Amino acid sequence: MSSPNTGAWREFGPRSLPVPLEAALLCFAEHGYHGTSVREIAARAKLSVPGLYHHYPSKQSLLQGLLDLTMNELLQRSEQALAEAGPAPVDQLDAVVESLLRFHMSRREQAFVASTETRSIEDGYRDTYIGYRDRQQHMVDGIIAAGVGTGDFTAADPKAVGRAITTMCVGVSTWYNADGASSPDEIVEQNVGFARAIVGYRA
Amino acid sequence: MSSPNTGAWREFGPRSLPVPLEAALLCFAEHGYHGTSVREIAARAKLSVPGLYHHYPSKQSLLQGLLDLTMNELLQRSEQALAEAGPAPVDQLDAVVESLLRFHMSRREQAFVASTETRSIEDGYRDTYIGYRDRQQHMVDGIIAAGVGTGDFTAADPKAVGRAITTMCVGVSTWYNADGASSPDEIVEQNVGFARAIVGYRA
Repeated sequence: MSSPNTGAWREFGPRSLPVPLEAALLCFAEHGYHGTSVREIAARAKLSVPGLYHHYPSKQSLLQGLLDLTMNELLQRSEQALAEAGPAPVDQLDAVVESLLRFHMSRREQAFVASTETRSIEDGYRDTYIGYRDRQQHMVDGIIAAGVGTGDFTAADPKAVGRAITTMCVGVSTWYNADGASSPDEIVEQNVGFARAIVGYRA
Repeated sequence: MSSPNTGAWREFGPRSLPVPLEAALLCFAEHGYHGTSVREIAARAKLSVPGLYHHYPSKQSLLQGLLDLTMNELLQRSEQALAEAGPAPVDQLDAVVESLLRFHMSRREQAFVASTETRSIEDGYRDTYIGYRDRQQHMVDGIIAAGVGTGDFTAADPKAVGRAITTMCVGVSTWYNADGASSPDEIVEQNVGFARAIVGYRA
């Protein structure tokens, strides 16, 4: 039975980040973490520096807050997509690939800052962040392993396949253009097809 | 007849950038373009600031010099790989994919700075840089179009295929680890196979 929320993982409104995180995102995307001061973030957020520090006591806490919301949104959408997909490995693959693609087209700035500023994460948070990424990768890897197990997929090296598919999906954020010739639906259809080809899906 | 230089596009020694560009690369990779001062680059290069400015009159000229050498090396290697590959579309595809993969494993730091600091390129150089990237993409697209023309490749949308393959190859720089479980040769073999699957190669 489909709930009223079915397919919500496909729908993206504008970002709804807390004001300080939205300001930090725009600053980091423009000038990078090290090229941005807390003063600049406060000005962009229309907050005083003490007002900003009240909720986020450091530039690092802004980066971590931003990455936390970003990775949680990514994982929640992927997990919802997977939960709605049914048991066939190919349907699960399609769902998670579609979810990764739509996220990386709709949340390009966040994907850019996450990939460029991994270097700027301080040690205490690094494991948490890598844990988020691993969870997403394991979701993809688990589907591929299951499909190889049932004989639906013929991939010789499931781990290499999982990495290539994730790389292709995440990388859409580096070239997707909302004004470009291809619509998100077309890009999803094409790349879901490529993912099926890479896993060696036998229809 | 094979020249003594055959296969040189496969071989990567350590970087041999001019000293100021090597210093700029390390600084930009660590702290980003906007997070780096010319003074820091000079210190890393063991040069005085005026000594650095003598050859590179601005931080922007260091970025442009670095991107120029990077893109020229990438293109020269791809063009040599293509020239040595013979006429069959699948051999040309294998060669250019291998060249892209090896470059992005061996020149990770440069690939990272190029992808993250495209935002920092000033207007006068932007078209030059985009021209380099277009030349690389057109090389891939041309091979795919030729293979679709001969019937070797069954891709329905050659342009989408070219983009996906380039994204997968360039993205290897985001996860490749010289100490990881897979060797460069294994990664090449796997991803050449994925590229063939994506173009719908019929052996």
